[in-house]
Amino acid sequence: MASKFIIGVIGPGENATPDNNTMAYELGKAIALEGWATLTGGRSFGVMDAALKGASENNGMTIGVLSSGTSKGSSMYAEIKIVTGMGSGRNLINVLTSDVIVVVGMSPGTASEVSLAIKNDHRTILLNQEDLTVQFFKNIGEYKVQNVKTIPEVISLIKDYFSMNRKR
Amino acid sequence: MASKFIIGVIGPGENATPDNNTMAYELGKAIALEGWATLTGGRSFGVMDAALKGASENNGMTIGVLSSGTSKGSSMYAEIKIVTGMGSGRNLINVLTSDVIVVVGMSPGTASEVSLAIKNDHRTILLNQEDLTVQFFKNIGEYKVQNVKTIPEVISLIKDYFSMNRKR
Amino acid sequence: MASKFIIGVIGPGENATPDNNTMAYELGKAIALEGWATLTGGRSFGVMDAALKGASENNGMTIGVLSSGTSKGSSMYAEIKIVTGMGSGRNLINVLTSDVIVVVGMSPGTASEVSLAIKNDHRTILLNQEDLTVQFFKNIGEYKVQNVKTIPEVISLIKDYFSMNRKR
Amino acid sequence: MASKFIIGVIGPGENATPDNNTMAYELGKAIALEGWATLTGGRSFGVMDAALKGASENNGMTIGVLSSGTSKGSSMYAEIKIVTGMGSGRNLINVLTSDVIVVVGMSPGTASEVSLAIKNDHRTILLNQEDLTVQFFKNIGEYKVQNVKTIPEVISLIKDYFSMNRKR
Repeated sequence: MASKFIIGVIGPGENATPDNNTMAYELGKAIALEGWATLTGGRSFGVMDAALKGASENNGMTIGVLSSGTSKGSSMYAEIKIVTGMGSGRNLINVLTSDVIVVVGMSPGTASEVSLAIKNDHRTILLNQEDLTVQFFKNIGEYKVQNVKTIPEVISLIKDYFSMNRKR
Repeated sequence: MASKFIIGVIGPGENATPDNNTMAYELGKAIALEGWATLTGGRSFGVMDAALKGASENNGMTIGVLSSGTSKGSSMYAEIKIVTGMGSGRNLINVLTSDVIVVVGMSPGTASEVSLAIKNDHRTILLNQEDLTVQFFKNIGEYKVQNVKTIPEVISLIKDYFSMNRKR
Repeated sequence: MASKFIIGVIGPGENATPDNNTMAYELGKAIALEGWATLTGGRSFGVMDAALKGASENNGMTIGVLSSGTSKGSSMYAEIKIVTGMGSGRNLINVLTSDVIVVVGMSPGTASEVSLAIKNDHRTILLNQEDLTVQFFKNIGEYKVQNVKTIPEVISLIKDYFSMNRKR
Repeated sequence: MASKFIIGVIGPGENATPDNNTMAYELGKAIALEGWATLTGGRSFGVMDAALKGASENNGMTIGVLSSGTSKGSSMYAEIKIVTGMGSGRNLINVLTSDVIVVVGMSPGTASEVSLAIKNDHRTILLNQEDLTVQFFKNIGEYKVQNVKTIPEVISLIKDYFSMNRKR
């Protein structure tokens, strides 16, 4: 049995914009249609919830890695709930578990995950981000960080990456 | 979509006996046949590997929560690999993520997981354990710890428990 | 500058007996008189608090490694408060940070720390424990676990250990 | 006994510039002269080592929060070594334990710590950073992030902050 490719979708919770949520939903859908699993922080709002919803409604596997010590308040679209009880400490697990991270919107928690991904040599795709954000993360992450405007470009980059990096 | 019931199978790695491994394989199989997911520490040997193999070969969902920072050396039977990079710190995640823990064999890491399960009010089933082990954990865990001799008894206890505790 | 020797004092919180607390206080005092630092889980009650009090009132350095994400509710006798926000995940840090663990009383959290100490090859001294407890941990920990009845014996064992293991 | 004020000094390891190291040394010294403890990631190079050296050589208390599972390779200037075994997971502990974070230089790990500090409502002082860095973190951190050019300004800001926020 091959282990599942896992795509982490990272973005703001409470402060997600309607555009962030729409983008995250469509991204989760696109990931599911490729047969990959979608992973988020698993809460019931914002980008975390929207991406899981998009994936779940398109028969994709969904994983929520929860900061809390129980599954209370988690997204109803998370099929598998990993309960860490480690607060923001779970952000590292999101990053290490995901084969690729895709970033929709920005927040402090999101910025910590992008930074940890770079630190741990995981690939990160910034989706439709502001110039300042792109420039900051390119400065510290160089080739590990890519920047695109649309979901088809995200999927195409991931396919390229997977074609060169067989799943462990 | 309902979230998945997850059964954690806990036991020794390097020092697992052949009997431990056989029991773990059969337990993973029995869990899979109920439609539940099997979770272990996800390494490629011992109870962790055997339980995932038993589940995987019977079309069960399998989750490995890895202590290492990459998936190198993980069980080929883990469909979903959660990479924590937290060493024995991941033992808490095994416990919090599992709806019920079943314990096959004993080792220091295993004892830490049983202890953490009791501490965090998760149900634990000791399978075919020595009297000393049973008595020690009953002393500190009281009603949270149950002790049985066979896999059908394990499955029956879990069904009873789930019938009274709907999935979040 | 030499780094500080750190002795972890482990034991129950809410369910500590008056005898546990008295023993923990005297142990913290004895550790301080040797010039070693005392480390506990840092809460404001039980063995954690009593050991820090005994050390602090005798001019010993005191370290509380907190499970919570802020220092609210922590022992007033902890000079240095390490805030982890990781719940029982901090138990591993207690163990890894302590050169030697001394165990006063028993509880699920305590049992997890003894188990993690054994797992990670740290020395553990059981102080005045019940026979069942001693036998269980001797079974899984062998030579890494020692069992004594009095505080002078604890101090003597630690001195022997340090004489053979220079501080990193 | 009052618990110790702890100032986290955050910055690059391998990629620290000579200017970063000089600044970190002087900052550790200035922190020590105020009677505060200096905390870093505790490795034996870069900003982590330099800040601890500056503090230690001026009789300040020094704390290294290590990513590794043993104290091998840690700074000889860390009086207290907190061993986490959690890789970059310890970055959260650095942030939560420090009353204030001061940032010297920039790297992916450093960026994760600034982000986690903002996320967890801890105050962060950027010292002599590039405009792009300042603007990015001001965008996501607002009033929680301050930006100064010199060490005396850092000390002054911390004093103001402590005068309004008594130690727990």
